[in-house]
Amino acid sequence: MSTKYLEDFRVGEIFDTDPTSLSTEEIIKFAKLYDPQSFHLDPVEAISSPYKGLIASGLQTIAVAFGQFIRLGYLTESSLGGPGIDKVEFTLPVRPENILTTTVEVLEVRKSKTKKDRGIIRLKFLMSANGSPAVEFVSTTFLLRHHSLGVK
Amino acid sequence: MSTKYLEDFRVGEIFDTDPTSLSTEEIIKFAKLYDPQSFHLDPVEAISSPYKGLIASGLQTIAVAFGQFIRLGYLTESSLGGPGIDKVEFTLPVRPENILTTTVEVLEVRKSKTKKDRGIIRLKFLMSANGSPAVEFVSTTFLLRHHSLGVK
Repeated sequence: MSTKYLEDFRVGEIFDTDPTSLSTEEIIKFAKLYDPQSFHLDPVEAISSPYKGLIASGLQTIAVAFGQFIRLGYLTESSLGGPGIDKVEFTLPVRPENILTTTVEVLEVRKSKTKKDRGIIRLKFLMSANGSPAVEFVSTTFLLRHHSLGVK
Repeated sequence: MSTKYLEDFRVGEIFDTDPTSLSTEEIIKFAKLYDPQSFHLDPVEAISSPYKGLIASGLQTIAVAFGQFIRLGYLTESSLGGPGIDKVEFTLPVRPENILTTTVEVLEVRKSKTKKDRGIIRLKFLMSANGSPAVEFVSTTFLLRHHSLGVK
């Protein structure tokens, strides 16, 4: 896919990512580094947790969903990074080998008033695990505008 | 540190985490898996980005801050996981070897109306990089109450 600049996005537009999954090993590896709680770390201890088995850290699931969108390639040349994320909701645990698919909807596209070469895009992410909604959040990203290419 | 249950937390209470840092290698490793943008992936390409050097994925910085709090051990026996995160703000880029310290403030402690063994705690995280505020967010976590021990 080729890069999209600010003007190339339309409110309401929806992008589907390629499916992916997390293995037991990937879930444990992330948990050891960033979220060492027993239901993310230890498949045996997790059985007696409220989740009755190993689940991925919510932080890992956001990261997977974001990465799925980045890999579509739309922001490769246009992203200037983002100021924040909002409204993260973990509605269903993500388990090893669940098929994870994410849809990304454009909520807002806005030119910057102060910096003529860029604008802001707000995207709503919805990740499903085996077809059921599991994680959602809204990201904000600074994006270059088309004519920024000429002023670089 | 020993586990704290819902009733052990007080609104306004503040916890300081142990300092940590991210190496160039750790930043690149995370970016390859979850946020493959050039300013997180490639120290050379990152020089010509708006950040003028490699910076950690914001998603990695949230995960580091959360992990710092989990490692204090307060939630080891009491956490039931969380329904969400809100108001994530990336105010300063986090660079390799920055000293990362996080303070965690208790915003709200609330008993569940429907489930007598648990409640909800809202925590505000503020991570500083080399002493300057860099990342903040609010997490919500389900926590067991003291008397849940008797009813297990």
